[in-house]
Amino acid sequence: MLRLASKSVPAARAVSSRNLSVSSVLLSSTRTETDAFGPIEVDSSKYYGAQTARSKMNFKIGGPAARMPLPVVHAFGILKKSAAIVNEELGALDPKISQAIQVAATEVAEGKLDDHFPLVVFQTGSGTQSNMNANEVISNRAIEILGGELGSKKPVHPNDHCNMSQSSNDTFPTVMHIAAVTEISKSLIPELTKLRDSLQAKSDEFKDIIKIGRTHLQDATPLTLGQEFSGYVQQVTNGIERIEKTLPNLLYLAQGGTAVGTGLNTRKGWDVKIADQVSKLTGLPFKTAPNKFEALAAHDAIVEASGALNTVAVSLYKIANDIRYLGSGPRCGYGELALPENEPGSSIMPGKVNPTQNEALTMVATQVFGNHSAITFAGASGQFELNVFKPVMIANLLSSIRLIADGSASFRVNCVDGIQANVDKIEKTLHESLMLVTALNPKIGYDAASKTAKNAHKKGLTLKQSALELGVLSEQEFDEWVRPEKMIGPKD
Amino acid sequence: MLRLASKSVPAARAVSSRNLSVSSVLLSSTRTETDAFGPIEVDSSKYYGAQTARSKMNFKIGGPAARMPLPVVHAFGILKKSAAIVNEELGALDPKISQAIQVAATEVAEGKLDDHFPLVVFQTGSGTQSNMNANEVISNRAIEILGGELGSKKPVHPNDHCNMSQSSNDTFPTVMHIAAVTEISKSLIPELTKLRDSLQAKSDEFKDIIKIGRTHLQDATPLTLGQEFSGYVQQVTNGIERIEKTLPNLLYLAQGGTAVGTGLNTRKGWDVKIADQVSKLTGLPFKTAPNKFEALAAHDAIVEASGALNTVAVSLYKIANDIRYLGSGPRCGYGELALPENEPGSSIMPGKVNPTQNEALTMVATQVFGNHSAITFAGASGQFELNVFKPVMIANLLSSIRLIADGSASFRVNCVDGIQANVDKIEKTLHESLMLVTALNPKIGYDAASKTAKNAHKKGLTLKQSALELGVLSEQEFDEWVRPEKMIGPKD
Amino acid sequence: MLRLASKSVPAARAVSSRNLSVSSVLLSSTRTETDAFGPIEVDSSKYYGAQTARSKMNFKIGGPAARMPLPVVHAFGILKKSAAIVNEELGALDPKISQAIQVAATEVAEGKLDDHFPLVVFQTGSGTQSNMNANEVISNRAIEILGGELGSKKPVHPNDHCNMSQSSNDTFPTVMHIAAVTEISKSLIPELTKLRDSLQAKSDEFKDIIKIGRTHLQDATPLTLGQEFSGYVQQVTNGIERIEKTLPNLLYLAQGGTAVGTGLNTRKGWDVKIADQVSKLTGLPFKTAPNKFEALAAHDAIVEASGALNTVAVSLYKIANDIRYLGSGPRCGYGELALPENEPGSSIMPGKVNPTQNEALTMVATQVFGNHSAITFAGASGQFELNVFKPVMIANLLSSIRLIADGSASFRVNCVDGIQANVDKIEKTLHESLMLVTALNPKIGYDAASKTAKNAHKKGLTLKQSALELGVLSEQEFDEWVRPEKMIGPKD
Amino acid sequence: MLRLASKSVPAARAVSSRNLSVSSVLLSSTRTETDAFGPIEVDSSKYYGAQTARSKMNFKIGGPAARMPLPVVHAFGILKKSAAIVNEELGALDPKISQAIQVAATEVAEGKLDDHFPLVVFQTGSGTQSNMNANEVISNRAIEILGGELGSKKPVHPNDHCNMSQSSNDTFPTVMHIAAVTEISKSLIPELTKLRDSLQAKSDEFKDIIKIGRTHLQDATPLTLGQEFSGYVQQVTNGIERIEKTLPNLLYLAQGGTAVGTGLNTRKGWDVKIADQVSKLTGLPFKTAPNKFEALAAHDAIVEASGALNTVAVSLYKIANDIRYLGSGPRCGYGELALPENEPGSSIMPGKVNPTQNEALTMVATQVFGNHSAITFAGASGQFELNVFKPVMIANLLSSIRLIADGSASFRVNCVDGIQANVDKIEKTLHESLMLVTALNPKIGYDAASKTAKNAHKKGLTLKQSALELGVLSEQEFDEWVRPEKMIGPKD
Repeated sequence: MLRLASKSVPAARAVSSRNLSVSSVLLSSTRTETDAFGPIEVDSSKYYGAQTARSKMNFKIGGPAARMPLPVVHAFGILKKSAAIVNEELGALDPKISQAIQVAATEVAEGKLDDHFPLVVFQTGSGTQSNMNANEVISNRAIEILGGELGSKKPVHPNDHCNMSQSSNDTFPTVMHIAAVTEISKSLIPELTKLRDSLQAKSDEFKDIIKIGRTHLQDATPLTLGQEFSGYVQQVTNGIERIEKTLPNLLYLAQGGTAVGTGLNTRKGWDVKIADQVSKLTGLPFKTAPNKFEALAAHDAIVEASGALNTVAVSLYKIANDIRYLGSGPRCGYGELALPENEPGSSIMPGKVNPTQNEALTMVATQVFGNHSAITFAGASGQFELNVFKPVMIANLLSSIRLIADGSASFRVNCVDGIQANVDKIEKTLHESLMLVTALNPKIGYDAASKTAKNAHKKGLTLKQSALELGVLSEQEFDEWVRPEKMIGPKD
Repeated sequence: MLRLASKSVPAARAVSSRNLSVSSVLLSSTRTETDAFGPIEVDSSKYYGAQTARSKMNFKIGGPAARMPLPVVHAFGILKKSAAIVNEELGALDPKISQAIQVAATEVAEGKLDDHFPLVVFQTGSGTQSNMNANEVISNRAIEILGGELGSKKPVHPNDHCNMSQSSNDTFPTVMHIAAVTEISKSLIPELTKLRDSLQAKSDEFKDIIKIGRTHLQDATPLTLGQEFSGYVQQVTNGIERIEKTLPNLLYLAQGGTAVGTGLNTRKGWDVKIADQVSKLTGLPFKTAPNKFEALAAHDAIVEASGALNTVAVSLYKIANDIRYLGSGPRCGYGELALPENEPGSSIMPGKVNPTQNEALTMVATQVFGNHSAITFAGASGQFELNVFKPVMIANLLSSIRLIADGSASFRVNCVDGIQANVDKIEKTLHESLMLVTALNPKIGYDAASKTAKNAHKKGLTLKQSALELGVLSEQEFDEWVRPEKMIGPKD
Repeated sequence: MLRLASKSVPAARAVSSRNLSVSSVLLSSTRTETDAFGPIEVDSSKYYGAQTARSKMNFKIGGPAARMPLPVVHAFGILKKSAAIVNEELGALDPKISQAIQVAATEVAEGKLDDHFPLVVFQTGSGTQSNMNANEVISNRAIEILGGELGSKKPVHPNDHCNMSQSSNDTFPTVMHIAAVTEISKSLIPELTKLRDSLQAKSDEFKDIIKIGRTHLQDATPLTLGQEFSGYVQQVTNGIERIEKTLPNLLYLAQGGTAVGTGLNTRKGWDVKIADQVSKLTGLPFKTAPNKFEALAAHDAIVEASGALNTVAVSLYKIANDIRYLGSGPRCGYGELALPENEPGSSIMPGKVNPTQNEALTMVATQVFGNHSAITFAGASGQFELNVFKPVMIANLLSSIRLIADGSASFRVNCVDGIQANVDKIEKTLHESLMLVTALNPKIGYDAASKTAKNAHKKGLTLKQSALELGVLSEQEFDEWVRPEKMIGPKD
Repeated sequence: MLRLASKSVPAARAVSSRNLSVSSVLLSSTRTETDAFGPIEVDSSKYYGAQTARSKMNFKIGGPAARMPLPVVHAFGILKKSAAIVNEELGALDPKISQAIQVAATEVAEGKLDDHFPLVVFQTGSGTQSNMNANEVISNRAIEILGGELGSKKPVHPNDHCNMSQSSNDTFPTVMHIAAVTEISKSLIPELTKLRDSLQAKSDEFKDIIKIGRTHLQDATPLTLGQEFSGYVQQVTNGIERIEKTLPNLLYLAQGGTAVGTGLNTRKGWDVKIADQVSKLTGLPFKTAPNKFEALAAHDAIVEASGALNTVAVSLYKIANDIRYLGSGPRCGYGELALPENEPGSSIMPGKVNPTQNEALTMVATQVFGNHSAITFAGASGQFELNVFKPVMIANLLSSIRLIADGSASFRVNCVDGIQANVDKIEKTLHESLMLVTALNPKIGYDAASKTAKNAHKKGLTLKQSALELGVLSEQEFDEWVRPEKMIGPKD
């Protein structure tokens, strides 16, 4: 009979670490929070309040994978801090409360309170509940800082203070843009730039390796491997520019539009001050949106940015796909490139290096295409003064940004940087090709050249063998005339 | 000066529960695991081995949101258990080892070892690394059960025993289908059925409420609110059938194809036995795929299933969108329906009930559209004997399944079941309409009817007021002839 | 100085045949037609009337490529004939008028009056104007048959007689389904079946050709070329079934729903009679839709059918893509297949056969993916009692149907049927591969086998050369043990 | 018995004007053309030659709707003329031949020879056959001009002269860009600009009309109708800029890359000269592409441009959708706008104006979304030195350009320009709203304000009625305090 021993990792089996945090093990008590609907019990280890708790109950959709992306949460930290600063400057907010809000908001911005933001993307379409989640967490944390009682809304009120002069309808679009620009600037563009540089280095490294070109997948005239890679460099270079071209519209902030875009309940100039403050905190040149009605009711800037990411994904798909075909083999494929081996392929089959990074990157590309479709549909579906597909739009955009950034980094480090040219195979393939015959046209005439190629094709000879067999030239002439290195550029 | 008090939730701030599990707090030591690449240190609180650890290092793409979906992990439990049973039956696997594997695999299937599956979707396109993750976890857990040393591969070897007669190339497509059918059967279809039933109940409840119809968004001839909802019922009913029609192809398992579809290294009949065993364990009628080459190289069955989910999302979008427009108001919209209020709308604006569930469900629909695009592209991109977009395909399919299931449940419980008809508003709107004039054609002639409507339109009168003003009929005649309840079906 | 001679094709340059028909050359007069908006001049060589003329003026969108597809026009012929027959049977329509309508409608159905249907897809979203186009052409042609005056609406009225008991809202969805089912049944399924049969013939022809398998594009264990093609056969076989599974919903006709789905202004049973009559005329088993509200307000059946076409396009993309890679070369690619040469490739480069049919078919696939996206979005966008994206939905569906049917036919005739296996190259590649080493494991042990492969890989030897060099077996043993034909299926 | 009279339009029935041109009626003879495959009979009324004829036979895919778009044909005229000029300048082409080619190419560019370009999109993926079609037509027409014999290839050879220094691989991408930029510059941007101006005029016209705002479709705070339209203006303004930002990459021409991007068989500088010449002829600032490898192997610039069009379609969908909802009614909808009536709606139902232009424009948007999906997939699918999805990419891009241009024009002329505000309804709706209660907060306190709103909601009163009933203020006070015009902007 089988005896079940259970020795080494009891803790791991005893509790599932994802579901049970240290704090919830230690503190399982609750406190009462209230909103317009009345009281509701909330886990006392969390800062969020009644509206967040209600959203958790009412929107059990999608599980952990559907969680509101953290860059949105962090952007709320930036925004709420900025609002406190501006409101204090304008004399509308007590300095002490403002300071406490600023400290709490900074913690949100820095990711220290991520666990207090449990909501999912599939909630109210304006993102109201995430805005309230931010207000609740920040007010409770500020209350705590000021020595008050959590849930008391005193001395810091989630609406009156944390949401002062704001509406979900303008805060959520604002954090969408803050999060998108931040991730693009600090993660995506740097990673694409590094990938471009790596490809450029390979293009330089391979500049003298002449290889057969392929069009329609068929043997064509030669080019250098460096030239081939230069096309990839150009694609990524253009991709970076494409993304940068979308930044001006993403840098516009909706803040100041309040409920419907009119700015009701704000003072003139509030919108400009907020944009300035967000710029100061992020180091990124945000500006207030020229038309707040558009900024709330439509998210064309998100669709536009996604369109640029879609184009970049198209480029990356092409590059990764080419490289894996060029690396196919080891014996029965194109075999021109040797890709780095990062994990065991076949234990018995030396040289079987699966292009796993290329597979990951092409999967990333298909995901970006899908995200773009979702964004397109959601972007078109705004109604009157509000687009209510905000969370799904920003979640998909941030997914695309992160996937391209991470995928580019992984592909660069684990694939591109380690690519080596199989020079022997490239050389052999080039000289087996019949396409070099075109170099003989001006020397022996079209008819003799054509005959040479046909003879080689029929008998399985190399061009040289065929030419010598037919006696249309000497070996010396062949070697002098058939020079692939003369075929890789225009004539002077 | 601001003094920072920090009182009530220290634990919550002290550690981030998502990043730090109980076990990792307690056990931070490592052990050595090895693969063909050599030794590698692994967190000793985890059962996985060298190949999983290597994949974690090499594919840092997408973060938690990109984690391999748990239904895939659980399906690996089912499959590995089935394989152990069949291999034991065939005399290929020592019963003691088989039993230990079965116990460990059962724990995987039941979700007890989820934390030991850290890999992301964007890995090798065959899902090899997740297959090895399963082999490593199950072998180590089985070793533990049998009193052996983790990482020793004795007496249970991840490849020789847990992967016996299998290849990643056939196991991963097999778990794709097991996971998809399981989630569809146990979650999606039940939830859609409940939604259909709720809509049917509303259709019955509303069967006598006559309302204005709208075509091109313009007032049209009347129908009952029950009839309007009956269209939704039909859509969901069809949707369930659409999904069910895709099951036969999803019920085919690739297992037995091994590396390229030939079944090399299996015995004849192995494929049938495995399918039978999986059926036994899941209670679902799986069958062995009639052509294993197709089953490895293409995942058309996944694309097909996604197409059905896409159609269902189209239906749900339409239903949720109609209902939110019919509930628009409270004063300045269509206002025919009162949707349940689940969270505070406007604190000062009574009756402003935001259709948040409809917003969540329409966002779900757009996500499903996007997932479908990703699946389509990935599905087309298979090459020769293997499609290497497997993880991204199943991740998107499972996302769509879960989102529709969860979204339908949330929408039903929090919206549909609580919808009430604003009978007064419906009645008033109906009678303000001029479309009822068509009922007068046979009574007072087309010309007089038309004149009545035009007079009403011009002067802002009701039809009745206009008819009486023009003297074309008596009040009694109007009430007798203009009977919306006679306009809601064909004549006998 | 250059003298411009103009000799042989004066007519071709003198008039543009697409813009100027014989009739319009001969007859440029107009006649007056009227509708509720008043009189309008219409080209007297055309049967259509005022509403068609107005639509032409108001919707100048997209040009010839955007014309309403002819299968829709022909389906209107079927429907209007059916309605006349049923209305006559019910005593509602004068037999003489009915007969004239039937003759005219038959001409429409048979494509004899195509030139009288000039409208584009981007018109009213209910297709009303195309319905009126049909009514106007049929009534005028019927008037002509009966000796009346065109445009007089006597004795045959476009609305009162041709549209009797109908509304655009039910006729257009009805013709959508008639057109779709007809094209699927009479064109698409036959063509896919022929393609399947051609692929099957190739699978049979190639059943004894053993070749290297490729997974991750890397050399893998062998299979037969026939097995590889059997995967394609399975994909197309499944594709046919996928399309057939969508027919039941497409066979439901909306006719009888009239304006909003209630059937107002029809008699009970009219819907069933119409479906029966359409079935009789088409030979296809149409049925009346069980719920007319759904049938007008949603077109999920179109989305569903498009989903099946999308899946088929995925399959065709994979098949065409594989075959072009297998045919790549002639010297520097995989080169396992010789594709037929249908047009000049390179005049000097023998053997450079561009896979043009594969390119056309993969382009078809991408178009079908795009059409499907358009259909998905349009299908979700219905409102209340009417989906007003009908024309764009059916146009894209018919485009997909035709492109797949035509593309399959072209690919079959001009590519598949002429594919030849390059047996020498396949054989050579297979034996160059190192993957066959797996056959030696049970004979010489894993270690010696592995050493053999590594030695071969390092020195560029064949497996046999390496094994002999290392002295691990004799030539005779190698030839006896390394038998690819034993590696292409499970063991007994 | 029914007697079939056939009187007034005999010609129309006798021949189908689309199928039978004047020329083909008069001239049905053929002539012999030859290519590398040998002789083939060609309709003697056409200028095209053997390769075009062969493509017609081999690619019977898609029918008239799939025809290669005419802007591509016309761009070939521009390119071939430019090449002749440059080749003549370089002394490579005999001036007499060059001049004849220029005359013929000008006719192609001007659309005079459209009927001689019969090929479809679904041909070879490089567009080679359309390039040859252009070469054949131009050479034959040039031969004719010079008094030679059609089909003789003397004195003007389709390859040697018309295709001199060119390859299909660089000409087709070149005409893709010429066609796209031309259509964007001469048609799309002007039409979007006019639409923007029309929307701006409406925004100005409506600047003093205060209306209820709507968020989540629910009554919200007021704004002016002019403000609402200003959001649309901003969307279209941004859309124009989005498209303009894609022009720099579209202005790069691939010409000079020849077969694989190296420029083999051209002279240095040829690429620059061609770009200059094309610029001169078109008046558009084309430049030679900085990297020809990228320009042949990828069409990211097309994907990028399509992304911009996709964003514009998103905007137009939102605008058209809002406007049709605002125009819904006449009695039972929002009814704030009166849309122009362009065709008969309901003959008996005054005021039932179907928003047909909005329906057409939203259908256009869905088509553009679909086109974009097709372009994305095709753009990603390039291989090595050539993307072979060129025709389907440019066809979809040109479709999107034309549909948006035509759709915008039609929408502007037939809808936007004629929109009128239903001021009475807007006013009435605004004052029925309870949202104005927010204006009373600072005057009577939150509690009294809230009580007023709740009382109004419960009893169906207006705010004013409720306030007076509750006695919380006087009528005069209400009129003074509740001033929507004070709620439409930030405070000073």
